[in-house]
Amino acid sequence: MESSSNARVLAVGKAILEKNDGLASRLREEFKRQGIFVLNVVSSPGSGKTELLAKTLRLLTSQIKVGVIVGDLATNHDAERLSGHGAEVLQIETDGYCHLEANMIQSAADQLGVVGLDLLIIENVGNLVCPASHDLGEDIRVTLLSVTEGEDKPLKYPTIFKSSQAVVITKTDLATAVEFDRELAITNISSVTPQAKILETSARTGAGIEAWAEFLLTAQKAKIG
Amino acid sequence: MESSSNARVLAVGKAILEKNDGLASRLREEFKRQGIFVLNVVSSPGSGKTELLAKTLRLLTSQIKVGVIVGDLATNHDAERLSGHGAEVLQIETDGYCHLEANMIQSAADQLGVVGLDLLIIENVGNLVCPASHDLGEDIRVTLLSVTEGEDKPLKYPTIFKSSQAVVITKTDLATAVEFDRELAITNISSVTPQAKILETSARTGAGIEAWAEFLLTAQKAKIG
Repeated sequence: MESSSNARVLAVGKAILEKNDGLASRLREEFKRQGIFVLNVVSSPGSGKTELLAKTLRLLTSQIKVGVIVGDLATNHDAERLSGHGAEVLQIETDGYCHLEANMIQSAADQLGVVGLDLLIIENVGNLVCPASHDLGEDIRVTLLSVTEGEDKPLKYPTIFKSSQAVVITKTDLATAVEFDRELAITNISSVTPQAKILETSARTGAGIEAWAEFLLTAQKAKIG
Repeated sequence: MESSSNARVLAVGKAILEKNDGLASRLREEFKRQGIFVLNVVSSPGSGKTELLAKTLRLLTSQIKVGVIVGDLATNHDAERLSGHGAEVLQIETDGYCHLEANMIQSAADQLGVVGLDLLIIENVGNLVCPASHDLGEDIRVTLLSVTEGEDKPLKYPTIFKSSQAVVITKTDLATAVEFDRELAITNISSVTPQAKILETSARTGAGIEAWAEFLLTAQKAKIG
């Protein structure tokens, strides 16, 4: 993999990533100044980001003011699914980009209107690779792992799991049907990211949803006070 | 999304993609000259690419000579899972790349040894975005959609579905448990890629595996003769 084309990708990528990181740092400062806690939610497509957030929003919006930015290559389906739960929601269509970038968040935050928010949730594009290297100015990054994806995903996509402060195992209602090896999954997550909090949820049955909402509220209070 | 950083990504990307496409065309010619039919399998992480291929390989290798190249960011788990089914298997660790590129296939084909093969199967990195724009010199591209991912994925990731000649719905044994809307999924696939053959499989129960193997054998014979 030492061809010149790869070398060029990496060289150019570095400059762009540094620019993204600089803007992300400025966004983080600005969000902190405004007292807004920012959550970046990442996962493979279909791991249940939107369903988890839809089930969590009402628990959050009864206590704090929440805004949501959702990224997808195409469609505004997720924004529609997340509306009506007490939070303003804005969809970004990335038109081919496999991740959100800090400049997209800057524009989206302006459009959404973040003044007065306590919590800004960013639902990233469904992808276990590209979002890992794009800081969005968030306070915490949370990666979802659905029981249907297989216990080895933390080992196969270590970068994104390593950069996460929490991992949410989703769709636990399907664990038996897919013969999910819970101990193995937790061992794999912990081996890649020992510091991450691990939560287990089922948006369908509601199991673990309150604990997940409580985790976010506690993290928000600890950061913003 | 009109910032200069985005413009640079696209401009540089275009040159690299053109270089990739040129090499892919040469690989396609070379594979054709050698009578090797090439399949590029793409999907989201955890959609069941490896399990589907593991269950299919024995049916194929009893009739034709098959080689497999597997791409992952890290680990050689998939190559291990695919070995012992009568095909030579080579793992590419992309170390951060969210897709395989034609130059990786060129190197891997040299290492694997493709002389005498009838079918070369490439299992791409689990990703519904990046592999879409990287031609690997394949004859057909097949995208998998597991019933657990949701029926809307073809609409949310149209590029990769549009570029596929077949779509394999996987994990159909879980369809009832996840309340999979089969008609809606097929409608969505057909709306994005009307020409694609749609197959339905369960690696766990074996449903549809023979039809999928037959599809590949027929496509291989039609192309290579």
